[in-house]
Amino acid sequence: MINPFDDTYFMKKALQEAELALQKGEVPIGAVIVCNDQIIAKGHNQVETLNDPTAHAEMLAFTAATNYLGAKYLPDCTLYVTLEPCQMCAGAAFWTQIGRIVYAAEDEKRGYKHWNCKVHPKTKVTGGIMAEQSKELMNRFFKKLRK
Amino acid sequence: MINPFDDTYFMKKALQEAELALQKGEVPIGAVIVCNDQIIAKGHNQVETLNDPTAHAEMLAFTAATNYLGAKYLPDCTLYVTLEPCQMCAGAAFWTQIGRIVYAAEDEKRGYKHWNCKVHPKTKVTGGIMAEQSKELMNRFFKKLRK
Repeated sequence: MINPFDDTYFMKKALQEAELALQKGEVPIGAVIVCNDQIIAKGHNQVETLNDPTAHAEMLAFTAATNYLGAKYLPDCTLYVTLEPCQMCAGAAFWTQIGRIVYAAEDEKRGYKHWNCKVHPKTKVTGGIMAEQSKELMNRFFKKLRK
Repeated sequence: MINPFDDTYFMKKALQEAELALQKGEVPIGAVIVCNDQIIAKGHNQVETLNDPTAHAEMLAFTAATNYLGAKYLPDCTLYVTLEPCQMCAGAAFWTQIGRIVYAAEDEKRGYKHWNCKVHPKTKVTGGIMAEQSKELMNRFFKKLRK
């Protein structure tokens, strides 16, 4: 049977979160966490809004997901995030033992892969899902910033 | 003039935080953040209490310190923490551009140095201050756990 809840579907939801960040004047990065085709947590970058350098989309989503499930570990969950996670967020993902990470655009400057950081050995990673849409949001943000 | 507020003084404060974690049945790790010889933020590991794998002592202290100062960056602050930070906490430290990190015991399994992770190039790091006291707290925790 065809499942409409594919990676593209959930990445669009993460991009919607990134749009919310953009509206607040934040670097537009969004994330959702999915368990059994259900979104159990959402987050968007709120570093400026909360004045908290740790308030990345993924961090807020991890905290919300573990709170929702009442569990420290997320082996049956997938994180969808619009940008390759940084060292901090990859480290947080490690602690959650999340089953899968799907990201859109690569982050050549701060991405965990480019810094040779680790996720949990049990975590599968897929990159490049809707990367263009994510980059387009980023470009919109930085164009506005330069004005 | 002799300054009584030295690294040992502030590490003792971080160890007091670690004691609070131990009393709650948490892995005993504590942190304080200091600015101009004044403690502006404290934190102790609350992963179990908050059911949040991101609730490490350092993360809670970073959020509290930036909130207190109303600033995203902590270049004039020092983090005292009773265990070598992990990848996540080193990543968070990177984003804060904290001026200095002082830790007590090394963490050979999860420590950011042992994982070849980065802190900000402007951050100075000192390890080994009151390492034995930190290890002793850890041993007490794991002994209790095995009973």
